[in-house]
Amino acid sequence: MDAAEFRRRGKEMVDFVADYLENIEHRRVYPDVEPGYLRSMIPSEAPLEPESYEDVLKDVDRVIMPGITHWQSPHFHAYFPSASSYPALLADMLCGGLGCIGFTWAASPACTELETVMLDWLGKMLQLPEDFLAGTKGQGGGVIQGTASEATLMALLAARCKAVKCVHESDPQRSEADIISKLIAYTSEEFCATLGTTPSCAFDKITELGPLCNAENIWMHIDAAYAGSSFICPEFRPLLDGVEFADSFNFNPHKWLLVNFDCSAMWVKKRTDLIGAFKLDPVYLKYDNQESGLVTDYRHWGIPLGRRFRSLKLWFVFRMYGQSGLQAYIRKHVELAKVFETMVKKDKRFEICAEVVLGLVCFRLKGSDELNEALLKEMTHLGRIHLVPCKLRGRFVLRFAVCGRTTELRHVQEAWTHITELQHAASREFHTMW
Amino acid sequence: MDAAEFRRRGKEMVDFVADYLENIEHRRVYPDVEPGYLRSMIPSEAPLEPESYEDVLKDVDRVIMPGITHWQSPHFHAYFPSASSYPALLADMLCGGLGCIGFTWAASPACTELETVMLDWLGKMLQLPEDFLAGTKGQGGGVIQGTASEATLMALLAARCKAVKCVHESDPQRSEADIISKLIAYTSEEFCATLGTTPSCAFDKITELGPLCNAENIWMHIDAAYAGSSFICPEFRPLLDGVEFADSFNFNPHKWLLVNFDCSAMWVKKRTDLIGAFKLDPVYLKYDNQESGLVTDYRHWGIPLGRRFRSLKLWFVFRMYGQSGLQAYIRKHVELAKVFETMVKKDKRFEICAEVVLGLVCFRLKGSDELNEALLKEMTHLGRIHLVPCKLRGRFVLRFAVCGRTTELRHVQEAWTHITELQHAASREFHTMW
Repeated sequence: MDAAEFRRRGKEMVDFVADYLENIEHRRVYPDVEPGYLRSMIPSEAPLEPESYEDVLKDVDRVIMPGITHWQSPHFHAYFPSASSYPALLADMLCGGLGCIGFTWAASPACTELETVMLDWLGKMLQLPEDFLAGTKGQGGGVIQGTASEATLMALLAARCKAVKCVHESDPQRSEADIISKLIAYTSEEFCATLGTTPSCAFDKITELGPLCNAENIWMHIDAAYAGSSFICPEFRPLLDGVEFADSFNFNPHKWLLVNFDCSAMWVKKRTDLIGAFKLDPVYLKYDNQESGLVTDYRHWGIPLGRRFRSLKLWFVFRMYGQSGLQAYIRKHVELAKVFETMVKKDKRFEICAEVVLGLVCFRLKGSDELNEALLKEMTHLGRIHLVPCKLRGRFVLRFAVCGRTTELRHVQEAWTHITELQHAASREFHTMW
Repeated sequence: MDAAEFRRRGKEMVDFVADYLENIEHRRVYPDVEPGYLRSMIPSEAPLEPESYEDVLKDVDRVIMPGITHWQSPHFHAYFPSASSYPALLADMLCGGLGCIGFTWAASPACTELETVMLDWLGKMLQLPEDFLAGTKGQGGGVIQGTASEATLMALLAARCKAVKCVHESDPQRSEADIISKLIAYTSEEFCATLGTTPSCAFDKITELGPLCNAENIWMHIDAAYAGSSFICPEFRPLLDGVEFADSFNFNPHKWLLVNFDCSAMWVKKRTDLIGAFKLDPVYLKYDNQESGLVTDYRHWGIPLGRRFRSLKLWFVFRMYGQSGLQAYIRKHVELAKVFETMVKKDKRFEICAEVVLGLVCFRLKGSDELNEALLKEMTHLGRIHLVPCKLRGRFVLRFAVCGRTTELRHVQEAWTHITELQHAASREFHTMW
C-alpha cells in the first residue's frame, strides 16, 4: 500500500469510524457469540501472498463486528467508561503517523516535553498540591502510564526501593533480601488508598490515612482511576482532599476524560524516588544535554522502555473541549446517574446498595441473589443493554455505570424501562423454577 | 466536535500523515531544540473555553514538529527501527474507533480471540515449536504485551511464582520471604537469554544455555526484541534454534515487522505458569462461559488490566503484505546493512566492530574514542542522519541501523558519503584541538 492508496483507504476508514459511532446505538451492545467462534472463521495460517484491502475490510464486518462488545454504545453500562472522543482519535492518528518513540528526551524532545507540560496542566485542573507539579524547577511531576495497574506497581516498587535504602543507611550490615522480607504493604481489598473503587465507587478516608502514613514514614499511593476525572469540577474536588499527604497519585483520563485508552496519569512528589528504582544508562541511550538537569527521561519512570506520543491526546482534548467542556461532560454523567438512582428509589421492588457519588449506581432487586442473577443473565442474553455485577457486603448487586460519550437521558430511561420489564419476566420465571 | 466535523478533520489528518511520510526525508532527522524549548511556547494552563481545531493544528506545526526526532525518516539509523506501515495505521484507526477494552473474553470476544489466533499465525511464521501455540487444545499460547520489558518482567514473575510453589511443595514450613531471598536469576549484561542485543545485535548461544536450564529446572526466557522479526525468513530461522528449550519467548513486531508500536509478542509453553502468578477474579469481571475452559482472559497474562485491540494491526499487516512481502522487507534491510558494511570495510580509516548478522552495522574510525565521539557529535549537530553509539569491549562504537520503511540504497550511500566527509572535518578539528 503506497501513500496514494493510504489517502483513499484512510478517508474511507474515517467514514467507517464515524458511521460506526453515529449508528452504534442500533447495534446489540453485548455480542451473541460463543467462545471460540472466531478461529473457524479465518484461515489457520497467515497468507503467503498479499490479499486485497477489500477482503480485509469485508472480514472486519464478517468476523470482528459480531464479536465486539460495544463499549462506546450509549447502552453500555458495564465496568466503567472507556473514554473516546473525536479530538482524541485525531491526536492518535497523528501519534501513529509520527511513529516516534519517546524513551529519552533526545528520542523525541516534543514527546517528552509535551507530556511533562500536559501533566502539569492536568494537575492544575485537579488543583493538585504544587509539590506534584514539574514546573521548571519542581522536584515532582507527572508521567503517562498505560494503566492504573502499572502506576500502582511503579509506586510499590519505588516505595520498596526507598524503604530498603532507608533501612540500609541506618543498618548497612543487613542484606537487601532480609530487609525486603520484613517490609509490609498495607492495603484494603482494593489494594491501596482508593478514591472510587470499582465495585461501588467507594472512597477511602485519605484525610485520616494520610497523616498516619506520614507519621510512620509509609509511602502513600492514591488510586482514583475512575473518579479522578471528576475532580476537575470544584464541587467534586473535596473528594480529593488529603492528597497532600500522598507520595504518589494516579487516575485514568482514558476512563472518564474523553481521552482514548491508554492514558493513566501519575504524579509523584519526588521524582528521584521513582527514578531511583529504575535508573539504567547504557551508552546507546546517552546524548548531549543529558546531565544539564533540564531534561526528563521518561524511561526511568515506568516499566516500558518504548513509549508512544500519548500526550497529544491530552493536548487535543483539553484544547478542543476546554476545561468548561470537560466539566460539563462529567456533570452530565453524574446527573444521569442521579436520574437513574431516583427511578430505582421510586420502585419499591428495588433498592439502592451504595451511595451514588458520581456516575455509578449500585442497585438490586429486593430478594435473593439468585433473583438478581437471573435478571442480569436475561439482560446479558438479550444484549440490549450491558451491565456487570459486583458483590457488596456479601450480596450480589447490579452496577449501572453511565459510560457512553453519547449517553442521553432517553437511554437511561429506556434502560430502566427495559430492566423493570425484564424484572417481571425474570420474577415469573424464577418463581416457576423454584 | 461532532461526527460531521470528524469526517472532515479526519480526512485532513489522513492527508497530513501521508504528506508527512511522503516528504519526511527532506526534514532534518534530529531536531535542533534545547531542553525546555516547548514549555514557553504554550500557555501554562489548559484553556477554560474550547479553542478552534485550526489553532490546535497550527500549533502542531509550530510547537511539535520542531521537536520531533523523525523515527520514520530514511535518514534515521539510531537505536532500532520503530515499525510503521499504512495497513497498521489503518488498523489502529479502527482500533481507536471501536474503543473496546479486552481484559476478559466477555469484555470483547473478538479482541481476545483474534489476538490468540494472530499469535498462532505469527508463531507458525517463526516455526515456533507446537508447544508455544494455543490451537484449540494447546497448553501454551501467545499474548501481546506492550514492550519487551513487560514481557521480561512477566516471565520473571512467573518464574519466581513457579519456583516458590515448587520449593513450598517439598518444604511447606519455609516462608515465602525466605524462599524468595534464596532465588537466583542468571543473566548476562542484557538480562536474559538474548537473540540480537541492543548494542551490537549479538546472539546468546541458546542451544547451549537451554539444555542446562532444563536440566537444572531453571525458567528460560528468550528475548529477541529486534531480531525476532527476521526469523520469518528460512535463512535466519537457525538463529532461533534452541527455542525449544525455553519456557517463554518474546520479540517485538513493533520494531521490524511493520506493526506500529506497541506490539510485543510473547509466547509461553504453559499458560498456567503465567496465569498462576496473577489470577484474580472479582465478581464484576465474571461472566457466563468463563469456566468452560474455552476462553482466554488476557488480564491474567500481564500487568495491565485494560488492553487495546492491538491484534487488528497484526491481522491487517499479515494480510496486506503476505508472508512473502514481510520476508522481502526483512531481506531488503539486511541487504542494505551488508552494503553499508562493504563500504566501511573498503575504507581503511574505519573498522567493523561486530559481525553484521541482520540490519545493524557496528563500526568506528580507527583511533581514539574521542575521535569517534567528535565525529558523532558533529553528525548529531548537523542532523542530516541520526546514529547513536554503543560500548563494545570498552570502546566507543557507532551503530548504523537500517530503520526506515522507505530506506533505499541511495539513503545508505548518502549516509556513508556524509560520514566520510564529516570524518575529514572531524579529524582536522580534532587534531587542531589536541
